[in-house]
Formats: sequence, structure tokens, C-alpha cells
Amino acid sequence: MSDRVTDLTLAEQASLTSGGTAWTTTAVRDVVRSLHLSDGPHGLRRAQDESLLSASVPATCFPPAVTSGSTWDPALVRRMGTALAREASALGVDVILGPGINIKRSPLCGRNFEYFSEDPHVSGVMGAALVEGIQSLGVGACVKHFAVNNQETDRMRVSADVDERTLRELYLSAFEHVVREAGPYTVMASYNRINGVYACENLWLLTQVLRQEWGFDGLVMSDWGAVNDRAAALAAGLDLQMPPDGTDRQVVAAVEDGRLDRAAVTAAATRVLQLRERVDRAQRFDDWDVDAHHELAREAARAGAVLLKNDGGLLPLDPAAHLTVAVIGEFARTPRYQGHGSSRVTPTRLDNAWDALRQAAGPDLKLTFSPGFPLTGAPDPGLTDEAVAHAAQADVALLFLGLPEESETEGRDRTDIELPRCQVELLRSVAAVCRKVAVVLANGALVSVADWQDDAQAVLEAWLGGQAGGAALADLLYGACSPSGKLTESIPLRLQDVPSYLYFPGQDRHTVHGEGRYVGYRHYDTLDLPVAYPFGHGLSYTTFSYSDLKVEQTGDNSWTVRATVTNTGPRHGEEVVQLYVAFDEPHPTRPRHELRGFAKLALEPGASARAEFRLAGRDLAWYSTQRGGWRIDPGTFTVEVGASSRDIRLRAELSTLGDGIADELTAASSLGEWLDHPVGGKLLRDRLTAHPGAVKLDDVDPHVLSAVSQIPLGKFVGPILGLTSETVTALTAAAQKETA
Amino acid sequence: MSDRVTDLTLAEQASLTSGGTAWTTTAVRDVVRSLHLSDGPHGLRRAQDESLLSASVPATCFPPAVTSGSTWDPALVRRMGTALAREASALGVDVILGPGINIKRSPLCGRNFEYFSEDPHVSGVMGAALVEGIQSLGVGACVKHFAVNNQETDRMRVSADVDERTLRELYLSAFEHVVREAGPYTVMASYNRINGVYACENLWLLTQVLRQEWGFDGLVMSDWGAVNDRAAALAAGLDLQMPPDGTDRQVVAAVEDGRLDRAAVTAAATRVLQLRERVDRAQRFDDWDVDAHHELAREAARAGAVLLKNDGGLLPLDPAAHLTVAVIGEFARTPRYQGHGSSRVTPTRLDNAWDALRQAAGPDLKLTFSPGFPLTGAPDPGLTDEAVAHAAQADVALLFLGLPEESETEGRDRTDIELPRCQVELLRSVAAVCRKVAVVLANGALVSVADWQDDAQAVLEAWLGGQAGGAALADLLYGACSPSGKLTESIPLRLQDVPSYLYFPGQDRHTVHGEGRYVGYRHYDTLDLPVAYPFGHGLSYTTFSYSDLKVEQTGDNSWTVRATVTNTGPRHGEEVVQLYVAFDEPHPTRPRHELRGFAKLALEPGASARAEFRLAGRDLAWYSTQRGGWRIDPGTFTVEVGASSRDIRLRAELSTLGDGIADELTAASSLGEWLDHPVGGKLLRDRLTAHPGAVKLDDVDPHVLSAVSQIPLGKFVGPILGLTSETVTALTAAAQKETA
Repeated sequence: MSDRVTDLTLAEQASLTSGGTAWTTTAVRDVVRSLHLSDGPHGLRRAQDESLLSASVPATCFPPAVTSGSTWDPALVRRMGTALAREASALGVDVILGPGINIKRSPLCGRNFEYFSEDPHVSGVMGAALVEGIQSLGVGACVKHFAVNNQETDRMRVSADVDERTLRELYLSAFEHVVREAGPYTVMASYNRINGVYACENLWLLTQVLRQEWGFDGLVMSDWGAVNDRAAALAAGLDLQMPPDGTDRQVVAAVEDGRLDRAAVTAAATRVLQLRERVDRAQRFDDWDVDAHHELAREAARAGAVLLKNDGGLLPLDPAAHLTVAVIGEFARTPRYQGHGSSRVTPTRLDNAWDALRQAAGPDLKLTFSPGFPLTGAPDPGLTDEAVAHAAQADVALLFLGLPEESETEGRDRTDIELPRCQVELLRSVAAVCRKVAVVLANGALVSVADWQDDAQAVLEAWLGGQAGGAALADLLYGACSPSGKLTESIPLRLQDVPSYLYFPGQDRHTVHGEGRYVGYRHYDTLDLPVAYPFGHGLSYTTFSYSDLKVEQTGDNSWTVRATVTNTGPRHGEEVVQLYVAFDEPHPTRPRHELRGFAKLALEPGASARAEFRLAGRDLAWYSTQRGGWRIDPGTFTVEVGASSRDIRLRAELSTLGDGIADELTAASSLGEWLDHPVGGKLLRDRLTAHPGAVKLDDVDPHVLSAVSQIPLGKFVGPILGLTSETVTALTAAAQKETA
Repeated sequence: MSDRVTDLTLAEQASLTSGGTAWTTTAVRDVVRSLHLSDGPHGLRRAQDESLLSASVPATCFPPAVTSGSTWDPALVRRMGTALAREASALGVDVILGPGINIKRSPLCGRNFEYFSEDPHVSGVMGAALVEGIQSLGVGACVKHFAVNNQETDRMRVSADVDERTLRELYLSAFEHVVREAGPYTVMASYNRINGVYACENLWLLTQVLRQEWGFDGLVMSDWGAVNDRAAALAAGLDLQMPPDGTDRQVVAAVEDGRLDRAAVTAAATRVLQLRERVDRAQRFDDWDVDAHHELAREAARAGAVLLKNDGGLLPLDPAAHLTVAVIGEFARTPRYQGHGSSRVTPTRLDNAWDALRQAAGPDLKLTFSPGFPLTGAPDPGLTDEAVAHAAQADVALLFLGLPEESETEGRDRTDIELPRCQVELLRSVAAVCRKVAVVLANGALVSVADWQDDAQAVLEAWLGGQAGGAALADLLYGACSPSGKLTESIPLRLQDVPSYLYFPGQDRHTVHGEGRYVGYRHYDTLDLPVAYPFGHGLSYTTFSYSDLKVEQTGDNSWTVRATVTNTGPRHGEEVVQLYVAFDEPHPTRPRHELRGFAKLALEPGASARAEFRLAGRDLAWYSTQRGGWRIDPGTFTVEVGASSRDIRLRAELSTLGDGIADELTAASSLGEWLDHPVGGKLLRDRLTAHPGAVKLDDVDPHVLSAVSQIPLGKFVGPILGLTSETVTALTAAAQKETA
């Protein structure tokens, strides 16, 4: 099929490189049918018509990425992906515009609910799982937003200014993982600029890194409205502009007047045809099992809720107990279950916790409900009074708090991380009259807990639960299953502690990423700063012990790490076991430790299982701009296995000989680099020994030598070491020859 | 004279653009004599011979910049400059290689003792004072190291990667002040690269910013050995390479084969001739008053010491009292009085505190001495025991602690900010047996006090005192005068709190300045982080009250600020009154406040004086890269007058209408920028009103409008606002025409 691109005129090829409608690619005669693209990382927003602002047909609203990421369960997310693909197929959708795998740089980003984590390993693994699930039925996935689209403020112009090491190690890393491991059919280039160049016009990003280095063989489309210069975008490697804006003629004109290579247009059109070939191989389905998908959404919501605290084992509540429970908070009846913007799904049905709690309660459990606060408008003292009156009569108060819907939307960032003040005051009033208070949170981006959590014995961070979140909460609160989600982002004590605080969202059309690769726990743990809850934290109704760490070296820079986890408590539960690699350096040049693996183990009481992780060279490597590639230095490092980034249970020290790649020596290499070099060191020492007037390095004071070692060899031309520029040139040539 | 450059051949001109010897410029026939250059911001290191490693002849060793900066007394520093010039003249020196005015980005920088402050206002004012003093006798000053030379590690290759706003507001600002206010004859370009380009080859830095924007009309020389490419350096605006390395032929060859414009060589040679003209106008002196200069050094050391704490008024000690004082610490007898490296002076004499304390003591004051610790080598338990025995017999223990000499040297950075452990242990042991302990610190870069300061009732940070530091300490400790120095750098609680901690000193030949403009108090105060002692802190033996803040507006963006300071204590004293300008922003885009003025007032007990400051538009401005210039936004700000950055005594809120410069509107300007624009707003609203189908902006939900307002106007081509690309072009043209 893609051979047929040669049958197309330049104008036809150009037309393929932009959309036909807001949601479809262009059809060309009988050669190419149009493909339907649909928003929907967590559910399909299948447009009813061709317009940009079209309403969408009903589809299952799974929990958004904030929640599915918190499951730390790629197998579950893979099943979600397969379900999404089934619905896509039934709705005539060829490509699902997701997953979104941007790094949560700041909790203020308005679109954080659509992203998985502050950590690229979690984002990459969960993103790959969703892609694999979607593409298992032949529907295309679209990994977005490529790249460094970490904020909504000024997103169509802002330049994310980031040093390359940070790009490679943090912001591009999850994309690299998904591209290499899951082979997504498409990638979406983002609105923003990266170091001054629009993502959609970024040759380095779209061609050099994505295609040449990572081997991506699919199609790159623009975010909707992200292209500023069609010719520049095509030249950079952007294949498909969405939606159409009538600029196809400009493409033809650019080729005709020589500003754009025709081959760029042909290559892009070819990729549209290849995408069609790929999705046309898919098996087609006419429908899906609405109940089963709802149930899967419930499972995901359940698995993604994070039990932050549970003093005195307040949760779970026994549904058969003789208790009065005051359910308080409008969110129990009117759930916050997804965010605003292009990802918004019209659900097939919608659970709420109040109904689900009543349905699952035994005859002795008495439940009362009061809304406590209005969803919009001014606080209502009458509602507070009613809630407090209920709480005063209850054994337990169950408060459903969360962020207002308008706080979490594409296109707008937040300015703080606080719960609405009226909710915090409600909690205080309730805690004053009721000894046992559990808070259930509904929010897509984190909220600060420092100011109010002492007023609650238990806090369950339920995130945004999707359409079955209400039922999932009843499952968790009554103990039908145990919480097993963990935090994929650190919860700071205050906004000022967030490493991007001083830089976010920038000004003057630039967002300087001053904090570099020190985002989230990479910052807090390296600086040993207190947090409210660390990355990876999450409690269970049962307890787990860790033991028997074994590390087996399987190659030059590869190891298998195994550890035993035992359910030491009274209930079934699941534990997310985390593997970090730690480096101890006098001056930090990398985070103190970084997540390199995780495993979720389901264990009956008393049962044990072995978690197994594989470490490879890349897990020890850092990106050297000097080398233009990844680099492993010889030395020791520590493998840490634990329950969170701050709860490391097992440790082993390992060592590596490095990657064995000797750096090229030049006159700009320092004296120290020469002396330390496997080849150059001997050459230089021989030369100095042969020259009787030269300073004897062994006689130099170590303090002086350490300073002098930093000086480039070329600067020593002169009597001190008896070097001429000719000898430096000769040494350099000899070192390069012997190293090669 | 400079006309004579036309008499010179190309080879002769080229020879003028590099040194003749390590310390002189090249002489050409009878046309140009050679000029003598000498290290020495705080004293002359006049070489005895022409070699790079020559010993130096004796000269007064004034306190280094860390100490003279802490005086906050430009008049005193100006007198020091005049004294330096007198010695230079007597020693045949034409140009003094100083002051060094780099910003103290990290306390680890090995050369911090040569720099004034973490703040560019202090650095600029003190640097200008030294230049004015030096040049008052016609000797040339050399402002260095231009620019962003904030570390010693890999200094000959490292690229200081800094965004332009940070460069303009922090790292270049002091240089700009000195160039504009004091007209230095020369500037020294530093070793390092800036955003990838060597300072010595940096056309933007040396020509666009320094000469074209700031109007510098002097000569730019290289740091010693900093040039890597003669032709590139000359083309960039570097006039003089030091020391010579035999590459003048390369300059001639580069001109002959067209790689270098001959005009660049002529311009550089002309500036060497101009420098000769300038210094030849100087009055010449044959000698100086060694005693008077020693006395001036003593005055500066006294004025630069900072009394960090003084619980219970332990200091001063009454020299006439009936007391036993145990003087402990080798530094009392063998002073640390300057740092290592190119700034090291051979002093004309050298005081020590032990002698000075004995000489000034009355008959009833009993003094004992014990060294306590060795200056080099392993700790000596015998010394500790002796010191503790003395302390146990004493009413007061006076401990002289500090950094070892090898910790503070050009060419090498520190890796921690701790006092040597043996000294801290000595203090603990002494405190265990003596109720009254005062610590006197000798160090050129800050040391952490958090771990040990509770063991001392008083801490006097004496920095490096120069050759008369010992006598100055006796003056202060006995109360002949009161301490009046204040901190020009914040003392953090721990190294990890330092904003550059995660980035310093970098790797891979780059030092990313991730902390941006948030250096020192700009970081701690904006984030409200605890510090050991804040910027601007310093106690006196007397006390001061602040009152009667008056602000008088003197122009569109100019004000005079006055405040009364009263000596409310029992002794004569001097107070450094500080003026900050504060901005309160929901998202910080600038430091919470910044120093904009200071005044040192000398007051008898009960006396009052009025401090007066002038504020101008630049004091409110920020550097906008989008505009390519400084920018004042309309709004309110607070003028703060206080005794430190954390001890603000008086406040007044002011407002500005901004700079009145309307930004140019384009299709890339956002809808919000259009609507807010004085001209464009009306044009666009008129257009929308005239188009009946367009969305009515007043009807749009404010949340939606705030998101939509960020979208560039050009992206609205289409039905929503009824705009075509032609209307956008027409609106843009109309707005530009009406604005112009």
C-alpha cells in the first residue's frame, strides 16, 4: 500500500500531511481512506461530528492516568488498554490519542491528572503497558505530548529551557522506553518549544533522537493547533498536522520554490499510508461488554487509591458492625471522577460512593449523609452545621473532600496546592465533635495535607476514580479489598519546597527548568528535605516484611536482584516493591537514588513471594553531553529495595568497572585526564621521564597537583613539563591511535 | 599618542596585543614603552623579575575583599585603593589587577576570599570604590574576572551555563555598575566559557554588552593563560593576551589569509596605546608611608569583622578588668591573614592577636596562651589537654579558630563548609570547663556554625585580616571600638541548603547555574528557609533604633528614601542601614526582595542621623529577554529599610506606572496581550464588535477566558472570533502604526 505514494501528486501527498476534518486524516481518491483519531487516554472521546468542539458519544470512563499510574500495575493498565481498543474499534476509531506520559514537574500543572508520575521509569512502564494493550487489538496508540510539555501556562509559545542531560535522563526517558519497548504507531509533538525550537519543528527531537537514535518507525502528528510553520515542521520530521488549517497549498508552494525538499513531503505521506496499513490489519469489533468494562474501571480505581495514613487501624469499616457513620461531603454523592479538557469522556454510567456504601452496608451499619459544602459558590454555614450535627451523632465521620472541578483542567495551571478553605474548616469542625475521622480525597493533582491531616486518623487519596470510582471506594472503605496504590509523586510539606517553585511557570515565553533533573524525590531525597509523604508511599490493611536480598551478576553490567516479601498481617494484600539504585558522591552530580524497577506482589496472609528485578548498564549510566552519549563510570553503587523512596528495607553494595570506553584525548584534555587515561597516562609519563628538565609529578605537593591536574595539557606548552605544541600534537595522535 | 598606531607595522601592532614578559606589555621601538601589570586587589604582588613564578617585593597586605566588603564602607575602600595606587606608583606598577567582583555563587569557591559578596549591589559599589581609589592617582585598575567565573574547578574549560536574565540581573550587574560609575582603565576576561563561548572569545560579552551597551572605553586583557584562539579573541574584542605565548605570528597570518580583520588588530593596539597615555598622566611617587598604610590596613580589618553573636554581652573584654583570659588557638599567634594564589602579598610587617592583646592589656588582666591544635598534621591530644587546662583556670576562653590555609586557594574549590573537626572538638572540650567562651574566626570563605555555635556565647567572624589583623582584633575584643561589619553573604545552616548545591561545580565541562538568580538571600528569603545568619547581619556593642521613614517621589520612577537611625546604647558605634525593594507575587518571578542601597552611619550614644537613599527605575526593573532590555511593570512594591535581610525595621508601599513602553503586538501575541494593550485592545474589540458572528468576550466564562487568553491571536484564524489571516495582519499593522 505504501508503495502507492508514488501514484499521488505532490498536492495529494501534501493533503495527506494534514487532517481532513478536526478528527480525521485526509482521504485521497480510492487510494487512501481517512483515519479516525480520538482523544482518550482513559476513555474515548469519540466526536459525534467533524467539528473541533463536537460532543462525544458514551464510552467507559476509566480512571485517569494519575490513578492508573498509582496502581503500579502494568498488567492492569494493559487490560485497560485492550478495553479501550475494543471500544475504539466499535466506535470506528483508528488511533487513540494517548497515553500522556509527561513528567509531573510541578503539582501546579493543570494537566497532571492526565500524566502518570514525577518519575520517568514509572511513566515509561505504565505508558508502555497502555500502548501494548491498545495496540494488541491493532488500534494505534499516540504517545504524547512529545516533549517537555510540563505546564499549561502559555503552552503554545513557551520555551522549555532544559539542559540536555536533564532532557535525556528525565523528560525524554519515558518516551524512549515506550518507543523502544512498545512500538507505538504514532507520537504526538507538543505545543511548546524546547530550548527555543517548537517541538513540531524540532529536527533534533523528531528525527535525530526519536527516529535515528530510538528507532521509531511510526508517524508523528502535531498536537491540535501546534504547527506554526508547515514547511519547517515537515522538514523536521512532523508527518501530520492536526487539525487542518488550509495550509496544504503552502506546502506545495514551499516545494516548488525550493524551500522544502519534496522528499520530506513524500516521507510524511508515506508514513500516513503506513499508519493506514497498520490499523487496517486490526480485527474489527462492533460492540463491547459495558458491564465488564465498568467492572475493569472499578478494579483500576480500587488499585490506584493510596492509603496515606490509617492511625489505629480506623479503616476498613466493618459493614456488618453496629456503627453510625456520618458520610459528609458533596463528592460522595456527586463524584469528581475525571478532569476537564480534551480528555473528558461521556461515561456509560456513573457510580457514586454514597449509593455504593449504602448498598454494601449490613443492617446494623447506620449511614447518614450531609453535603457539607456546595460544589460551587460561597461556603454555606447551614451545610456545615448539618454536617457537624451528623458527625456529633456518629461513631465515625467519613469526609469526602477534594478539588473543585475548575482547578483541574487542560489549558490552565493552578496557583496553589491547597484544598478549598471551606473544606478544611469543615474538617476542623467535624474533628472537634467526632473522635474518628477518615478523609477520602478526590483530586487529580496533589493537594497539601500538612495543615489538616492531624485532624484525621485516616486519609485515603482516591485521586479521580473514573465512572466506577464510587463502587471502588465502597470496596476499599469496607475492606472487601485492601488499598494497594502507592504515590507516584512526592507530597511536599508546602509549595515552596517544590523544586520548580522558583521557575514555574516562567515568564517572557520561557520556562527555565532550573531544577534540572532534581524533580520530585530526586530533589527531596538528595537534599534530605522533609516531605509530607514520600514517593512510593502507600499503606495497606495488612503489613509486609522484606528479607533475603540476593544479587546475581549476570554480565559485565547486568545483575538480577531478588528479594522476599512476606505478608505479615491478617489480610490479603498487595505490595509494590521498589528497586532504587543509589550513588553516594561528595558533590552530587546525580540524584541520591533513582527508581529502576518495581513489582506488585499479591499475597495471602502469611504467604511470601520473591520479587525479581533486572538491572542493566543503562540503569547505572548518566548522559554525558561531552561524550554525546550514555556513560557508566567505574565505582560502587548501592541497590536498595524498599516500600517507598524513604522506606528502604534492604541494601546491597555493588561495583562496576564502567563501560570500558576510553575518552578521546586532545590538547584540551586536562593533565589529570591524561594521567588517568589507560593509554594516554603511560604515553605522557614516558614522555615526561624522557625529558630531564620536566617537573617530576611524584614530587609535586598533592594539593598543588590537584589544582594543576585540571589544566588542559595544551596549556603546558613551555618549560614546566618540557612540552612543545608539536609534542602535544604527537602525544594526542599516539593516544588516539593506541586507543582506537 | 594613539594616533601613532598608524606608524606601526601589522607585526608591531600584533605584538602590542600580547605581553612582552609575564608581567609587562610589549615595548615597540621608541613609540610604546612597556607597562607593568601587577596582581593585587588587597596589596601589590609586584614581581621581582619577569618570570611567571617570580617572588614579590614587600607591600602592604590590606585585608582581602571578603573583609573589606564586610565593612560596607566604600569611603574606606576608596582610601585603600588610593594607598594601593601610591604603592603601585612607588614600585613602578602601571596597572593593578583588581578588584575581583565575582558573585559568591557557592561558599565552596576557592577564591571567595578575593570577592566581595553574594549580592551584585554590594560587589558593584565596593568594586567601584576600589577602582576610584586606585585611579585617583592615575594608576590603572583592572576589574576581574569578567564574567561568571564563580568556581575554580575546571576553570580553564568549564562553561558557565546561565540564562540571560540571570546574567543581566546577577552576574553582570556589578561589572556594569563599576564600568558605568568608576570608568576602570581595564577589564580582565576570565578563563571560563559562558554558555559555551570562552569569555576571551565572547563577542557578545566583550563588545556588545561591555563596550556598546555599557560604554566601556578601556582595554580588555585576558586572565593569565585564558586565550585559546588569538584571532577569535581579537575579533571578539580582547585587546591584550597575557602572558605572551609566541602566537603573535598567528595573528599576522590570520590577517594575511583573511580570517581576521586587520581593523581588529589595529583597534586592540590602539587601546594598548590609549592605556599607556592614561597611566602616563599619573603623578609618580617614590615611596609610601609604611606605618600609615599599616594603620589603614588595621582600620579596614577592624571595620570588616562581623560580630555574629554576643550573648550576655560577653564582648568586649575590659582590658583593665581583673580577669583571667585563656587565649587558645594557633591562629592567635600565627595568623591566617590572606589566601593562597595570585593575590598573595609579601607583607611589610605582620601583627598577631596574641602580641596585640598582651600589649593592650592592663596590669590586672591575666592572659595565657595555648595553641590548642597544630596548623598542619594530625590533631595533638597534648595541645588539647593544655588548652583545656588553661580554660579551666580562666574566667573567659578566647578561641581563635579558622580554616587551614590549604582550604582557601585559587585553583581549587572546597568540598565542605566545616571547620576542621579537631577545632570543633577543642571548642567542646573548652566549653565543658569554662562558662564564658568567645570564638574568633579566621577564614576567607564562610564556615558553618550550626554544629558548634551553641558552645560559644560570642562569635566574632574576623575573616582574613591582612597584615594588621592582629592589632585590629585587640581593638575589637577590648572594645576600643565596636564591631561594625555585616555579612555580605548568608551563612546557611548546612551545605545542602545552598542553592547551587546540586549544580556546583558541575561536570562534563559545564556548570549549569540551575539556581539562576536565586543566589544567597535571594534564595533563602524567597523560600522562607531558615539560615544560621542572614545576609546583612552583624551586631554592635551598642544598639540602634530605626524610625521616621519618609519617601519622596522625585520623578516618574525615582524616589528619595530617608530614615532616622538612633544609637540607643551606651557606646559609640556604626550601623549599616540597608534598603531593599520587595515584590510580592503569587508565582515568584523575581527574588522576594533585593538590596538597592546601604549607608554606614557613625553615631555617638544617643545621637541620631538620617540615612538617605535614592531609588531609580532600574531598581524596579527586570531584564526581559523578550524585549531585549530592562522592563518596569506597573504595580506596587515595598521599600524596606532594615538592619539585615531578615531584620526589616521600616516599610513603605509605593507604586509605579511602569516604564510606559508598550510591547509590539504581532500574530504571536496572545489574545490576552492584545486585550490588555493600550492600542491593540481597542482595535481588536472594535473589530470583534463589528463582526456579528464573533464570540462575545464578555459572555465567556472567566475560567475559560483565562485559558483562552494565552492563545496567540494568530491561532484564532477561523470562525470563533471571525478572524482571517488578513484581518490579523491588518490589526497587527494598525497596532504597530498607532503605537509608534
